[in-house]
Amino acid sequence: MDTRTGLPVVGMVGGGQLARMTHQAAISLGQSLRILAVAPDDGAAQVAADVYLGHHTDLDALRAFANGCDVVTFDHEHVPVGHVAALVADGINVAPGPGPLRYVQDKRAMRERLAELGVPIPRWAAGAEAARFAATVGWPVVVKAVRGGYDGRGVWFVDRDDPLPEVELIVEERVPLRRELAALVARSPFGQVAAYPVVETVQRDGICVEVLAPAPDLDPRRAVEAQQLAIRLADELAVVGLLAVELFETEAGLLVNELAMRPHNSGHWTIEGARTSQFEQHLRAVLDYPMGDTGLTAPAVAMANVLGGEAGGMPIDERLHHLFAADPAVKVHFYGKQVQPGRKIGHVTALGEDMATVRERALRAARWLREGG
Amino acid sequence: MDTRTGLPVVGMVGGGQLARMTHQAAISLGQSLRILAVAPDDGAAQVAADVYLGHHTDLDALRAFANGCDVVTFDHEHVPVGHVAALVADGINVAPGPGPLRYVQDKRAMRERLAELGVPIPRWAAGAEAARFAATVGWPVVVKAVRGGYDGRGVWFVDRDDPLPEVELIVEERVPLRRELAALVARSPFGQVAAYPVVETVQRDGICVEVLAPAPDLDPRRAVEAQQLAIRLADELAVVGLLAVELFETEAGLLVNELAMRPHNSGHWTIEGARTSQFEQHLRAVLDYPMGDTGLTAPAVAMANVLGGEAGGMPIDERLHHLFAADPAVKVHFYGKQVQPGRKIGHVTALGEDMATVRERALRAARWLREGG
Repeated sequence: MDTRTGLPVVGMVGGGQLARMTHQAAISLGQSLRILAVAPDDGAAQVAADVYLGHHTDLDALRAFANGCDVVTFDHEHVPVGHVAALVADGINVAPGPGPLRYVQDKRAMRERLAELGVPIPRWAAGAEAARFAATVGWPVVVKAVRGGYDGRGVWFVDRDDPLPEVELIVEERVPLRRELAALVARSPFGQVAAYPVVETVQRDGICVEVLAPAPDLDPRRAVEAQQLAIRLADELAVVGLLAVELFETEAGLLVNELAMRPHNSGHWTIEGARTSQFEQHLRAVLDYPMGDTGLTAPAVAMANVLGGEAGGMPIDERLHHLFAADPAVKVHFYGKQVQPGRKIGHVTALGEDMATVRERALRAARWLREGG
Repeated sequence: MDTRTGLPVVGMVGGGQLARMTHQAAISLGQSLRILAVAPDDGAAQVAADVYLGHHTDLDALRAFANGCDVVTFDHEHVPVGHVAALVADGINVAPGPGPLRYVQDKRAMRERLAELGVPIPRWAAGAEAARFAATVGWPVVVKAVRGGYDGRGVWFVDRDDPLPEVELIVEERVPLRRELAALVARSPFGQVAAYPVVETVQRDGICVEVLAPAPDLDPRRAVEAQQLAIRLADELAVVGLLAVELFETEAGLLVNELAMRPHNSGHWTIEGARTSQFEQHLRAVLDYPMGDTGLTAPAVAMANVLGGEAGGMPIDERLHHLFAADPAVKVHFYGKQVQPGRKIGHVTALGEDMATVRERALRAARWLREGG
């Protein structure tokens, strides 16, 4: 609690763009997000006042940072669960706690738990059974590192003659999918859950490049099914904060692909596109405030990630000038990162009446910021 | 220019809520607002990374702060114009410059300039002529300090037998007004001007308590007239950045009451209610970026200021819980201030289809946060 303002102190472990955007939301709520950053030029550390420098695998650093926080939460899933449990043992309020966090850190534990819950998932097996499994479902299979993967890292398509990566892994059938969807919900300790409209996510090379809200032409019953699934998972796994459920839509129905328990790329559109942004919602959830309205602010919202372009092109600031001249209504979010080819350096959001138009505007804006026109 | 990100550094003199909310907008544009704050617990200093401590009347402090900024701008109008001119002589890009700033620091100069431009203003006279002037327009008259007033301070209603305040002053007729309006525009050095929809402002004790966007039942021709007036003034006064024109609506037409050249309380509704917030727009203008879309995001938007309640009531955090439970869609902005009775500690915004409803929601939310229900 900040004794001057009478408002809470939330600590977020990790200084990336999720913390950066959560800080923006915290400011409106009268707070100043406390951030544990690895380096002073981390995206969030550049813009926040209450920054601790330290590594998220260093328990002493975590303890010093957590001291005085009303609640500690995360911008990524790389804090060892044992450290999280140690903080809880110290009496620190951590959200989500070590119980649910385990499932986003260990894909095998997650698959086992989802199977136990009867949730539809791709057919899968643990690493040792990869070959026998592939004989059943057919090569190639999808191989995933049990720990540490994100943004396409730690996922491989493996064919009959390919060697298996030398990490602990699971194998999954390659699902014949129609498209990918994501269902985002937030749950508070009180047990209130709020669900956002289901979105379509478009991936390229394992990286989310586009999000369309609401998912175009989605059968309303299937949308409700996806929301109910996410709500049920938030509840069963006792998530506190956001839960993003990445889904495959197949001819036969929905399958759960991945879970994340933090603000998520598939929810960046909510900053302008929903009455309550995912960042504010995450803060409300971990603070046990009542959840905010998740309604859309426009009939169609499209978000596109901005990737860094090749060195030597038009400077980013000049590209921004051109973009603003071309589309005065597109919203830009930069993450404070140095431009590197292919690196996610920001995102853009377009809102309007018609999905085809907003999608075109968002993609054009993202391409423009990458290539300089 | 931040050499790492390739994006500009904007400096804002003053660490109040306007700088705080401008910093939120700066983060999206990939920036970290540099702030010259008087104290480390100023609202903006609590949440920003690039904070200089120093007084805005200290030229050395201003110079140290301005060094390395792409442009310097203001959260208030209390920097001596001579200091601003000195910064310009140093080669610092300052927006707005000393020319236009003079008119918001000196109400007599402003009235003279507006009269010269043929802009409709209340009848007025300089201080020495107060008694003779009142004999023409009738007591009571409005007396304004030429310098330093804001939020109701520096303005008095003076009747025949009242003593005049002992400051340099101007006197004005008491205008029989129907209501107050505000026209907000932004102008870039390139000369592009963008106008927001005209709003109605509701004052109590000289403090703006409510803003309704767009101004209900405003004759469309009069709305255009107000926008054109603001655009013309921005141009004639060579304003760079935002210009808020406070207007009296009378039976006979519009009269200009006050000018502000910075983000303004009458524009806080734009954070959620316009496609481009006034804070982003101010940054775009002073950076000579093309202006953003000023369109409404909902048919009716109401903003109400939150004033501090009496000591000993329900704590502010608990009041916030109750408010969020009662209205999940209202948006709250706290300024990081200690609660003191009658002090502006934040604002709330409600958006919807119907002005009567959103106005009621905003007022109820503001009252709730003040009184605790």
